[in-house]
Amino acid sequence: MATSAHQNFAKYLATDHMASDLVPLDASKLQVTRTTQPKSKLPKEKLVFGQSFTDHMLTVEFDQASGWGTPEIKPYGPLSLDPSACVFHYAFELFEGMKAYKDSQGKIRLFRPDMNMARFNKSAARICLPTVDGEELIKLISELLKLDQSFVPEGEGYSLYIRPTLIGTSSGLGVGAPDKALLYVICSPVGPYYPTGYKAISLEATDYATRAWPGGVGDKKLGANYAPCIKPQLSAAKNGHQQNLWLFGEEKFITEVGTMNVFFVFKNADTGKKELVTAPLDGTILEGVTRDSILKLARDRLDPNEWEVNERYYTAHEVAEKAENGLLVEAFGSGTAAVVAPIKNIAFNGKDYDVPLVPGEQYGEMAKTVADWIADIQYGVVDSEWSRVIN
Amino acid sequence: MATSAHQNFAKYLATDHMASDLVPLDASKLQVTRTTQPKSKLPKEKLVFGQSFTDHMLTVEFDQASGWGTPEIKPYGPLSLDPSACVFHYAFELFEGMKAYKDSQGKIRLFRPDMNMARFNKSAARICLPTVDGEELIKLISELLKLDQSFVPEGEGYSLYIRPTLIGTSSGLGVGAPDKALLYVICSPVGPYYPTGYKAISLEATDYATRAWPGGVGDKKLGANYAPCIKPQLSAAKNGHQQNLWLFGEEKFITEVGTMNVFFVFKNADTGKKELVTAPLDGTILEGVTRDSILKLARDRLDPNEWEVNERYYTAHEVAEKAENGLLVEAFGSGTAAVVAPIKNIAFNGKDYDVPLVPGEQYGEMAKTVADWIADIQYGVVDSEWSRVIN
Repeated sequence: MATSAHQNFAKYLATDHMASDLVPLDASKLQVTRTTQPKSKLPKEKLVFGQSFTDHMLTVEFDQASGWGTPEIKPYGPLSLDPSACVFHYAFELFEGMKAYKDSQGKIRLFRPDMNMARFNKSAARICLPTVDGEELIKLISELLKLDQSFVPEGEGYSLYIRPTLIGTSSGLGVGAPDKALLYVICSPVGPYYPTGYKAISLEATDYATRAWPGGVGDKKLGANYAPCIKPQLSAAKNGHQQNLWLFGEEKFITEVGTMNVFFVFKNADTGKKELVTAPLDGTILEGVTRDSILKLARDRLDPNEWEVNERYYTAHEVAEKAENGLLVEAFGSGTAAVVAPIKNIAFNGKDYDVPLVPGEQYGEMAKTVADWIADIQYGVVDSEWSRVIN
Repeated sequence: MATSAHQNFAKYLATDHMASDLVPLDASKLQVTRTTQPKSKLPKEKLVFGQSFTDHMLTVEFDQASGWGTPEIKPYGPLSLDPSACVFHYAFELFEGMKAYKDSQGKIRLFRPDMNMARFNKSAARICLPTVDGEELIKLISELLKLDQSFVPEGEGYSLYIRPTLIGTSSGLGVGAPDKALLYVICSPVGPYYPTGYKAISLEATDYATRAWPGGVGDKKLGANYAPCIKPQLSAAKNGHQQNLWLFGEEKFITEVGTMNVFFVFKNADTGKKELVTAPLDGTILEGVTRDSILKLARDRLDPNEWEVNERYYTAHEVAEKAENGLLVEAFGSGTAAVVAPIKNIAFNGKDYDVPLVPGEQYGEMAKTVADWIADIQYGVVDSEWSRVIN
């Protein structure tokens, strides 16, 4: 397929030219239409990630000619789009994943929402969708949360998953920068990721598919990065593993696990120190908010006489060698949904490598430690500027 | 973001288990609902690629529990989808681009539709969307074309662009294989790509972004491959070029142009022979139907004493060197929309390299030759098994 280079050329120039005159996203313009048919709430134990949604959603339309339109909170309901809309054909779409937590005072808290807004804008810029003033969007999300606050479940591990989404809605099959977009936010109440306690996962290293590449878009939260991930996960599942381990290059650099960042803990045989390690942000790694939080907390709280915290390249071969020499201490995935996902086993190069767990438990010590650190901030158990009360 | 590995695990196993029991796509079940509000047709000279559509569209729903549902031809109209539908979040989407041509007898012809169907299925399999029996889908497309045949414009360069699209429609934010999908086909009447004769384009080699990589999905016609392409095209446009030239790796291998395959013609200083060259299908190159057709026709029709036709790796450095030594004969993009897009200039590494054109014209000899070969088949001027009459 190809479209008229000349049509596109004109369109690109127009896009660029008009960017400065656009109306910015403005939370003060919010219009609210309350539902007349409130949903009955599911019992907490029946909540499934991303399957039920709150009564309302936030929508804001963007038009290249004018900018951001009137933000609306209205009853959750279907989107109606022309079948030629560019989101269906060229994956003009991105999202964020964040959560609202109810603290012991009944207040609703967001965890580092500014990080999600910054990444939202990075993702948008990469695929020529409009960016927003992040603080305005946080205000709008806060209004949505206040209206639907009865959906935020109480208790440890419970939260309201928030999904800001931005899609290109221009009609027409020409491949170019979208001139229309829709920003919307939907919310789903979720229970603990591990309802009966941690459950460590087994990984299969994927050797035939590569998630991301330098110069690609693997560091952005674009829809484009997700659909191609399913087949490798399915292959891993067929072989009895819960997730796949993404490698990069002939060196077999470890990059991510399924749709999570990943951390390893090694023991240094020479110094006796332990090392918490994850891949560096080189453009192939999703810039996870949980990843960043773990690194910052670990650097702040771990004893530097006993620990090194490193963002560096490391390979599956290095992990295998460490495992064989008793220097692999633990490993875990990290992400908004689970915070941490302890790893018990990695299949790589025809061998199975056991990853140590605390004896009798389904987690490693560091995984549980950072998960507790983060949960205490998320639920307001400890004070932190990372936790923002919205009501 | 991460979702429950255990939920996904069960879902993957279920997907695999049920695949064999599914109802296949069956054109004999077609139900037709004709529009009661036929559109007025645009004057031929006002047709813009992918901007106006015919009266009807084809839709078929897929459900993992049962398989393909009843194919329907119905009035062209909006799709209504839950805001949590997986097409909006994880880019479960793919498409094809093909054209219907009206021949001098008034018959409607498709060009190698089996190639589009094969690629459709490859794309679908890669992102765990359902595949189809390609001949059944061609039958359904043919019925749509017969119903909307008055929209197929007559005359050289005119055609009806056909857009088969497959999207995942499962509601819910878990990242897994979609359990519901929608196949739809929309059609847009189009005029000549070059209404006033060929117009050669200028390219900017992109050095900061990579379109595709080994182990990625760049050879599939997924939406995921398109949104990330716009920014480099915009950058090229800012610098006065109509398209960007995609390179790969430190070697600067030439891969594609914008959203087209690309061919170069070199002269061999030693043998005096000319070489028609394009990048090999190594997983990073879209398997273009026009690309394949050009290669097959060139191998069949060019005098082997004068020509070599090669699928091989070649770099921007090689092109630059050939240009400097007078051995660069011509270059052109290839794709369904334009058939060929002659190239007049390439900006690479801070230099501008002129690409020769026929004196006084906006095309090179080989570009025009293959375009004429293919058009003659598409419009039924010459007999070919590649052209399929559908009515």
